[in-house]
Amino acid sequence: MNTEYDNCKWVGFDILEQFMIEVFKKAGIPEKDAAVCAEVLITSDKRGIDSHGVGRFKPIYIDRIWAGIINPVTKIDILREGPTTAVLDGNNGMGQVVAKQAMQMAIDKAKKYGMGMVAVRNSNHYGIAGYYSLMAIEAGMIGITGTNARPSVAPTFGIENLLGTNPLTIGFPTDEDFPFLIDCASSIIQRGKVEVCARIGKDLPAGLVLDKNGESKTNAAEVLQDLIHGDAALLPLGGVGEETAGYKGYGYSTVVEILSAALQGGAFLTALSGIKDGKPVPHHLGHFFIAADIHAFTELDNFKKTAGDILRTLRNSKKMPGHNRIWTAGEKEHDAWIMRQGRGVPVDQEVQEQLLELKAKYSLDSFQFPFE
Amino acid sequence: MNTEYDNCKWVGFDILEQFMIEVFKKAGIPEKDAAVCAEVLITSDKRGIDSHGVGRFKPIYIDRIWAGIINPVTKIDILREGPTTAVLDGNNGMGQVVAKQAMQMAIDKAKKYGMGMVAVRNSNHYGIAGYYSLMAIEAGMIGITGTNARPSVAPTFGIENLLGTNPLTIGFPTDEDFPFLIDCASSIIQRGKVEVCARIGKDLPAGLVLDKNGESKTNAAEVLQDLIHGDAALLPLGGVGEETAGYKGYGYSTVVEILSAALQGGAFLTALSGIKDGKPVPHHLGHFFIAADIHAFTELDNFKKTAGDILRTLRNSKKMPGHNRIWTAGEKEHDAWIMRQGRGVPVDQEVQEQLLELKAKYSLDSFQFPFE
Repeated sequence: MNTEYDNCKWVGFDILEQFMIEVFKKAGIPEKDAAVCAEVLITSDKRGIDSHGVGRFKPIYIDRIWAGIINPVTKIDILREGPTTAVLDGNNGMGQVVAKQAMQMAIDKAKKYGMGMVAVRNSNHYGIAGYYSLMAIEAGMIGITGTNARPSVAPTFGIENLLGTNPLTIGFPTDEDFPFLIDCASSIIQRGKVEVCARIGKDLPAGLVLDKNGESKTNAAEVLQDLIHGDAALLPLGGVGEETAGYKGYGYSTVVEILSAALQGGAFLTALSGIKDGKPVPHHLGHFFIAADIHAFTELDNFKKTAGDILRTLRNSKKMPGHNRIWTAGEKEHDAWIMRQGRGVPVDQEVQEQLLELKAKYSLDSFQFPFE
Repeated sequence: MNTEYDNCKWVGFDILEQFMIEVFKKAGIPEKDAAVCAEVLITSDKRGIDSHGVGRFKPIYIDRIWAGIINPVTKIDILREGPTTAVLDGNNGMGQVVAKQAMQMAIDKAKKYGMGMVAVRNSNHYGIAGYYSLMAIEAGMIGITGTNARPSVAPTFGIENLLGTNPLTIGFPTDEDFPFLIDCASSIIQRGKVEVCARIGKDLPAGLVLDKNGESKTNAAEVLQDLIHGDAALLPLGGVGEETAGYKGYGYSTVVEILSAALQGGAFLTALSGIKDGKPVPHHLGHFFIAADIHAFTELDNFKKTAGDILRTLRNSKKMPGHNRIWTAGEKEHDAWIMRQGRGVPVDQEVQEQLLELKAKYSLDSFQFPFE
């Protein structure tokens, strides 16, 4: 068993999802939207992505609703619409609700015309990007999404944390039990994983984060504080400098920053910090969603088989000495889902306390957690 | 002056482009197509990408036409077409000709519907991917393209070179003198750069290539030979293993492999080697092209300004100690273009010999190179 779960209690998916729905409702989110928000979060936990699930429920969503910087009631305006394109304004509502509608629009347009792309402004953290790609995959499509985020990543040869961890997430269906899905930050490590390390008191590997002198920094809790104050920066995929091609990760991060903001005239870089004059303010995040209908190119089964053949060939190829397995993107998340089906979600002590605080505040006595 | 140019002669763009057109024509390519092929190659040299320009003219195009594995006359069939999508068969013709038509179709569809995406089968090496993104950029669009390629890159924890260097190339217009364009392989280093190092006898940095025991390999000429025999593999962006997130570069490489093959039922991985039973055979490459019309989302000038503001903020941010400049993607290529305008292309000794061989073979006596 992974040591990161040593101080965790395992909690069933259903109780966590229901609890999140009830708390979201108490915080002012309409029932239907509350279910969407909770579903996105629990999907992350089901896929083993502990950085984006229930561990972010209170700090990233509930606390921000309480602070008045997220509107619990999500009003969505369609600012512009064409046959395959649209721009939505989320009016600072729940990111998951805006994002789900946006990807659904992209899918609907792709069904009709082959392609769809929707840009979103004035939104909030939308959870795992992969959720929205999975929506497209279920519709037999290629699903792509990206979002900007709080400033975390320095450009190559820079030390200021300006860019978000900006995921560029791409998935498609295969003939296997699970789809291909690369759902990751364009930095080496993302902020949610730093949070997980900070919660369990684990150091980061060297070479992932720079301090303001351009030296490597490994204390996760300090990194989180320093990121807020602009005294640390995550490194883009590829690492420091150019020799190992850090400029490529930096380039893709810039792609996501521009696509998330420039199609909808939105905020970018440090304006996404959620802090102004020392006070919390809305994040004004932007996202984009692309769906491409595989049926428009070929029979879906043919696509799935070729994709599956490629993935199986990769997995079955010769391993490095000392390694006995090669994974493909989305496989570890599927493994986590298989493993967790019978156990639920590992909830660490800090998150346990958050859940109990919420339970007490809203008198949700019908929920009984295994850590009470 | 960079030492890699020490043994080079500088040759004007026009003479090189005209020479390539004439040789392509002598090799059987129709005049109009010859101009397209030469333009893609010289654009690479103009942008300072020496790995994909005139240095590849003979070995990657002319030699392959002579070997009968590329058809100089490019016949393009439209296999399937929808409002925003199409699948083209390049019938093993010139990659640049097929690719240019494919991106033009994507652009035309995007003009009408907002988006366009075209997949290509049975093609050949299409030169710098960035050329096609630049076509979309000039039309006021987001331009995306990718292609599979000869097997070069090992999956994370693997040692077999299975994946191509698979570029995922993305660009858009800005309000600056040059567009944003990330045009790079999803491996740390690409094969063309290894070729440049081999030509000038320079070692590769450690950590970019694995030998069959999973150890780092730095001799460029040996790497090229070993890649052909499956005894070396380039590493994906992010490097070896998972700690520095090599699985992300591997994931994006897989995305490009799947999108390049599965939409058109084409070849993939080792089937793209161009060798069968020790003999040269067609490569059967696949590509994809996406254009998204910015006008469908917002005023083009607004997009350009936001993009430019993001890029300027990145460039003007605090530098790492010991560094005094931050670049954005496409800027170094623009700098190269400015620098080369008065000088032309640096042509090393090996390429000089190739050009003289071609000149003699086709009696192109009207061309006089400065190295003769």
